[in-house]
Amino acid sequence: MTSDPRSAVIAAARQFYQLGWMVGTAGNLSVRLEDGSFWITASGKQKGDLRDRDFVRIEPNGTVIESPNPDNRPSAETSIHQTIYDLFPDAGACYHVHSVEANIAANFSRDGYLPLPPLEMIKGLGIWQENPEVKMPVFENHLAVRDIAAEVRDRFQAAPPDIPALLIRNHGVTVWGSSPAIAQNYLEIAEYLFRYLVVARQIA
Amino acid sequence: MTSDPRSAVIAAARQFYQLGWMVGTAGNLSVRLEDGSFWITASGKQKGDLRDRDFVRIEPNGTVIESPNPDNRPSAETSIHQTIYDLFPDAGACYHVHSVEANIAANFSRDGYLPLPPLEMIKGLGIWQENPEVKMPVFENHLAVRDIAAEVRDRFQAAPPDIPALLIRNHGVTVWGSSPAIAQNYLEIAEYLFRYLVVARQIA
Amino acid sequence: MTSDPRSAVIAAARQFYQLGWMVGTAGNLSVRLEDGSFWITASGKQKGDLRDRDFVRIEPNGTVIESPNPDNRPSAETSIHQTIYDLFPDAGACYHVHSVEANIAANFSRDGYLPLPPLEMIKGLGIWQENPEVKMPVFENHLAVRDIAAEVRDRFQAAPPDIPALLIRNHGVTVWGSSPAIAQNYLEIAEYLFRYLVVARQIA
Amino acid sequence: MTSDPRSAVIAAARQFYQLGWMVGTAGNLSVRLEDGSFWITASGKQKGDLRDRDFVRIEPNGTVIESPNPDNRPSAETSIHQTIYDLFPDAGACYHVHSVEANIAANFSRDGYLPLPPLEMIKGLGIWQENPEVKMPVFENHLAVRDIAAEVRDRFQAAPPDIPALLIRNHGVTVWGSSPAIAQNYLEIAEYLFRYLVVARQIA
Repeated sequence: MTSDPRSAVIAAARQFYQLGWMVGTAGNLSVRLEDGSFWITASGKQKGDLRDRDFVRIEPNGTVIESPNPDNRPSAETSIHQTIYDLFPDAGACYHVHSVEANIAANFSRDGYLPLPPLEMIKGLGIWQENPEVKMPVFENHLAVRDIAAEVRDRFQAAPPDIPALLIRNHGVTVWGSSPAIAQNYLEIAEYLFRYLVVARQIA
Repeated sequence: MTSDPRSAVIAAARQFYQLGWMVGTAGNLSVRLEDGSFWITASGKQKGDLRDRDFVRIEPNGTVIESPNPDNRPSAETSIHQTIYDLFPDAGACYHVHSVEANIAANFSRDGYLPLPPLEMIKGLGIWQENPEVKMPVFENHLAVRDIAAEVRDRFQAAPPDIPALLIRNHGVTVWGSSPAIAQNYLEIAEYLFRYLVVARQIA
Repeated sequence: MTSDPRSAVIAAARQFYQLGWMVGTAGNLSVRLEDGSFWITASGKQKGDLRDRDFVRIEPNGTVIESPNPDNRPSAETSIHQTIYDLFPDAGACYHVHSVEANIAANFSRDGYLPLPPLEMIKGLGIWQENPEVKMPVFENHLAVRDIAAEVRDRFQAAPPDIPALLIRNHGVTVWGSSPAIAQNYLEIAEYLFRYLVVARQIA
Repeated sequence: MTSDPRSAVIAAARQFYQLGWMVGTAGNLSVRLEDGSFWITASGKQKGDLRDRDFVRIEPNGTVIESPNPDNRPSAETSIHQTIYDLFPDAGACYHVHSVEANIAANFSRDGYLPLPPLEMIKGLGIWQENPEVKMPVFENHLAVRDIAAEVRDRFQAAPPDIPALLIRNHGVTVWGSSPAIAQNYLEIAEYLFRYLVVARQIA
């Protein structure tokens, strides 16, 4: 018997909501199943108290194949999750949230990348170097989310990212990992790095 | 059977209190009933552990028509809630809280409006534009709350606000929505925007 | 049957601890009984999980008259509580905590007083004025706490404070109220004002 | 019957995780037993919900002598804990966490030491002076943790620290105390001091 993978996503969403990263109904979280389809949070749900019925299941090609509640619409940002799962075969979960610090830090980017500080914490993203020099890709925001997804695909096919994370200007961070637990670790580390960057800029 | 709408307000108040937006006994929350009357938190109540008896029910004309506890006085700011319900027939709940960030951000206003940053989060307030340019009305504070309410009425009759939210200088934010859940979403988004504005100003 | 007044103090201490205002074993809280004696937290207790036995009962003259645990020593700052109860006959509870913001804000004082911002929140301290101009007394810290207490007594006898609160430089805030609930409200408001003052100074 | 000392460590880890000091799987905590061996958190564990099986037991010479789960590897930073227990015979617990503020404050150090502010809170670290002048040792970070441990040993043998705490640049704080409760108090105080230092630098 396998437990429903939505459970881990629901618990993560509650925590991210409590941390102020999913206020209003912002953000969307997904988990991929063995058959390649993925469950993603439905549009407009409050993230502090999700239920299994608040998801839709999406085929790799974007078709909705299961919706526990007929009113559910897939998240407006489903195309970004699709792109991540397509580009990264090992990705088992993809989490997108909006923190204040992520949006502030995105303003520190240059030439489409945000340089990250050489903190020990970087090891948690799989980088094992003395004084690591790592940068996070930053994309421009567009009203049509498919345009963002297309730019992610184009750039990542040309230049894979150092770490499993990307920023969209004014629009928060997206991370992916092999499981919901790993994706949650990566998100915690990414947000930690944004907090560091913001505080470092506040120092006189 | 309809559940008592005060339940959602009590849960919201506990959360806002824990977030530091209703310290002391600050702020007041109301919910409108089908008959046009509204339940509003009574004056001087601690907001972290409200009960049904900590409200008074008010007619659209301001008359108290139900008070579960004879000592309850309506919130000093009842006239603002009355004005909002009168001006916006779709408003089903009106929430007023005091965060530090709201009071700091109000100081960034010019000519009675606070320009908001073009964050994706703005979509949650019903604005669906590329790089939205939205501003929040800011009113001066007065010892006599009826004077504030009168200015809100006058200005909103002349120029309806872009979004269902207003600031009073030194006196926090007020939002309204079609239900307690929607008003809570709007409040979370408004406070997120204030945090962003404050942090953006702290960057060297 | 009257409930033990230590219950309210224990609940308040847990909350203040969780807010980061009583880290380590810092701070001390007391509640006065009808006979004029007061229960005060014993020295060196962790404040997140106090029990009734973690207090000592003190006569107005400073004598320990009840100690549920023979190892309990009265808080090193008992003399300040004694002074407050002696000077303010209506004081029923006296709370002293150390937040980062209180210690930063104390550095903004001039001539022994910290000017407070004219926030609506000030009404919660019993000041009911248009654009209130209120200031909080600030005392110098001394290794011998009795020296602090003597300066509080001397200054307050000459010039009673505007509000029921005082700061000690590098040493947090002390508030008092007619009951534990009122003292807690006042403390929440004082800390809110410190947060506002600190953020206002962080704005470029 | 003696309770398992891992219980206190597990509770502390949960709290530090919730405070954002052990995000991802960062940090490591240990407690020493009467026989001189110590339990330390295994590598790569999420710290918000540790179990007894998530530790390994280490001899003073570094040998693993007990591992409830065969997959457990000792924390990569075991050598620092070993060094602390060797240098300080009274140390019964050693806690290492990564807060944003610790990493920012480490940047304020000069000549290998971070000057601490003269806050009353310093008394909680065992310093009982008027306007105490205390500084915390700061070490450089190295990819090989044994190199950090060797520098700690060398410097502390030549110049014992004022207080039971040290910083590693970009790599958080380490504290030690005679028991898990005392180590937790010291850590709370150290983090309080970092927050103060950071906010003090943010003031214009």
